[in-house]
Amino acid sequence: MTFGRLLFMLAEARHGRCGASRRQVASSSSVIPGVAVMTHLAALAQFVARTPGSHVPPAAITRARHALIDVLGVAIAGSVEPVSKIIAQHVAATSRGVATVITGGARVSAADAALANATAGHALDFDDSNFVLGGHPTVALMPALLAVAEERGASGREILEAYVIGFEIATRLANAVHFEHYEKGWHPTATLGVFGATAAVARLLRLTEAQVLNALALTASMASGVKANFGSMAKPLQVGHASHKGVLCAQLAAAGLTANPAALEGTQGFLEVYNGAGNYRAEAVSTFGEELEIMRSGLKFKKYPSCGSTHAPIDAALDLIRGRPLRAADIDTVTIAINQRRITHVNRPKVSNGLEGKFSIQYTVAAALADGAISLRHFNDETVARPELQQLVGHVNAVGIPDLESLSQRCELTVKLKDGSTRSVRRDDAEGRGSDEFVRYLEPKFIDCVEQAYPREHARALFRDLDAFETLTDIAPVMHKLAGPAAA
Amino acid sequence: MTFGRLLFMLAEARHGRCGASRRQVASSSSVIPGVAVMTHLAALAQFVARTPGSHVPPAAITRARHALIDVLGVAIAGSVEPVSKIIAQHVAATSRGVATVITGGARVSAADAALANATAGHALDFDDSNFVLGGHPTVALMPALLAVAEERGASGREILEAYVIGFEIATRLANAVHFEHYEKGWHPTATLGVFGATAAVARLLRLTEAQVLNALALTASMASGVKANFGSMAKPLQVGHASHKGVLCAQLAAAGLTANPAALEGTQGFLEVYNGAGNYRAEAVSTFGEELEIMRSGLKFKKYPSCGSTHAPIDAALDLIRGRPLRAADIDTVTIAINQRRITHVNRPKVSNGLEGKFSIQYTVAAALADGAISLRHFNDETVARPELQQLVGHVNAVGIPDLESLSQRCELTVKLKDGSTRSVRRDDAEGRGSDEFVRYLEPKFIDCVEQAYPREHARALFRDLDAFETLTDIAPVMHKLAGPAAA
Repeated sequence: MTFGRLLFMLAEARHGRCGASRRQVASSSSVIPGVAVMTHLAALAQFVARTPGSHVPPAAITRARHALIDVLGVAIAGSVEPVSKIIAQHVAATSRGVATVITGGARVSAADAALANATAGHALDFDDSNFVLGGHPTVALMPALLAVAEERGASGREILEAYVIGFEIATRLANAVHFEHYEKGWHPTATLGVFGATAAVARLLRLTEAQVLNALALTASMASGVKANFGSMAKPLQVGHASHKGVLCAQLAAAGLTANPAALEGTQGFLEVYNGAGNYRAEAVSTFGEELEIMRSGLKFKKYPSCGSTHAPIDAALDLIRGRPLRAADIDTVTIAINQRRITHVNRPKVSNGLEGKFSIQYTVAAALADGAISLRHFNDETVARPELQQLVGHVNAVGIPDLESLSQRCELTVKLKDGSTRSVRRDDAEGRGSDEFVRYLEPKFIDCVEQAYPREHARALFRDLDAFETLTDIAPVMHKLAGPAAA
Repeated sequence: MTFGRLLFMLAEARHGRCGASRRQVASSSSVIPGVAVMTHLAALAQFVARTPGSHVPPAAITRARHALIDVLGVAIAGSVEPVSKIIAQHVAATSRGVATVITGGARVSAADAALANATAGHALDFDDSNFVLGGHPTVALMPALLAVAEERGASGREILEAYVIGFEIATRLANAVHFEHYEKGWHPTATLGVFGATAAVARLLRLTEAQVLNALALTASMASGVKANFGSMAKPLQVGHASHKGVLCAQLAAAGLTANPAALEGTQGFLEVYNGAGNYRAEAVSTFGEELEIMRSGLKFKKYPSCGSTHAPIDAALDLIRGRPLRAADIDTVTIAINQRRITHVNRPKVSNGLEGKFSIQYTVAAALADGAISLRHFNDETVARPELQQLVGHVNAVGIPDLESLSQRCELTVKLKDGSTRSVRRDDAEGRGSDEFVRYLEPKFIDCVEQAYPREHARALFRDLDAFETLTDIAPVMHKLAGPAAA
């Protein structure tokens, strides 16, 4: 008998085939009917099933609506990306149901619509983020909720409430596992987002507390996503997959599927297996604060569809020309100084396509100076190839500012004109990315995004619908509109 | 700025949005067209795409056929379990395609048929295992292959060849990660089986080498399954999920989806994230031995649908009455002595249902003595309730043998008769579980399994078809038969 076989058989004997007694792990008794044990996961299930809708404050609903609008805009813009089209075609060919796929307008099962729409929502990496989650809180949750709502019927208000509940579950888990989880290489938008999506859908479907518990315990069997696939089509697909699994776990629990109530914090459960013994704080899972996380840590939106390190420099360029436009022909040299630690990943003095443009401090500053705005079209290959932009990029020098706090966004922009004069501006941070500050960018960003796929008048009509989302009793017409004028 | 936010932003800057340059990780150049780097994963892809079918020896094909027959038998028996029915109903309601679901006979997409059939195949935990994998090699692979073959057309021989190839990929990965992987709490039937399923389907679909590489790299985004959910419905579903993902990853790669070629061994790839730095041997992934793993380590089959620790004692009971049956009424006491380390999980002197019967040394020995055989019907609640069995169970004493090697199966059975005489027998191991030794149990086990759902004559016809599987040019008729006489 080999050593390997010995170990395998020993472990099987401990945990496996002969493990009928492993169902009971935690100690105190549960208040959930039919569930014998009280676990942190059971506390989450109670929160999901029992929190009265009236406990979700209006300000949280407003933030949820902004997140909804933003993610749907970037999903429509992302729906023309190759990864979105591949997934949309796949689900159109293999799935059946009534939920709308934004890309192409197919009607498929709720889980598969979530797969396609969440993939599209993350294809551009232009969706919101949350620093507690260490990822993007909305993109796994909203597509799952919308698909189930379209299939089963739910009001706009119910969807936004369920989003706030799911947001709380995902960020509670994040509090328990970060930042060890992120540093180990997990992709939290997917690995934690999937729990948020399950919780949100379970809430929307009004599952019993025991069913929510089973759904979340089952989710521990489904979480996946590694950072090695960042920079490839697999990254947005990981998020689509999480949204799909959220729908699936909630639906299967509703159909009677059961799992181990200790699958989160028990021996060889999610926390231990994904983070490693000692690298998590299980108690944080069920420690709810005074304030909901969507109000405490909130959302961070992206104004520009480029690397975060380019945002403050773009703002500086726009500051510099505000009220005093410059002609590219008048510019001698441009010097952009940014944090030495940030320059390494955006110092790209030559750009030949849109993707490179997103990661070029030289290109983004040049384009902002020349056009007075940065929008999605700046990252089309055609725009990047414009001769006056290419020429201006050649005159931009990027330099590092040493000794700044590691994540400081401080930047200094100096333009030397051919007439010998100079203009300078300094910024300490990008502006307008926070939940409340972003409001004024919400509509123009949405319109810009939707215009990538649909006519402007359709984009405007969609914005109006979504801006009144709380008042909708049936979201199906809006879902059809999301798939374009032809599908509406 | 909080510490958490600092860490998140730093990590995002390192790996995330600004990580366009992360696609290239390994150093030497690849021989795969369009793939810039040579990785261990690329070596696996070469093996999958390039190994000539003629290099798969006839003995491997025979083992593959036995695995096929065995897993389909237990899947049919498992198809009546609640978890199988829930999943079958779910896919019947949400999926479309031509692949057959064994449970219920619905026709769905290949991936969803794999989901349902692999779940059914593992519902009883009665399917084969392999000690290198530390799990069950066939149950994730075969349902994926059969579903794709039914949808796209493939011969029996091609399916068996693709199974052997997928088996090799899953066990190569196991060599790289075990037993750290298993000990950490991963469920390798799912987490490694998913790579085997992807490889097998990719082979069957004749993907190019570059496509196989993308499919396997994408699989690194999909692997999941934790041991905490053992003993619940989520365990077989984890395996169904793996089979589903295998189909999906191969199909999406065929449709043009790309992923990072270093997603297995690169920074924050599968090996590092799932096992932890230093807890794996990446080079083992591409180190192919003289012999295929299906020939070297082979398959271990289950003769009896009960805990592995009951198998040698059941064999002992059958030895004891071979040619000399006993009447239960003549038995005074039965003493079964087994390894002290094994007795803890099968010492169950009272049994009130089938599941308890599977984990009771007293019940399994009593039933074997009384009926001269152990089959699935012994784990029906009705059989367990039979008065003469219940009475005999009350006369069985279980004792531990101390100081044995930890996994020794040694057992000693002594029956004291009412006439004062005794009979004793000793066994050192269970018999007939290895790939070649199991052949004589294959047909009776299959018939017993299939009879749980279908009439005996249908079971026999199915066995004949499957026993000639290499000769089939179209497997669709057999797939329909698997769903029962009405679907055939």
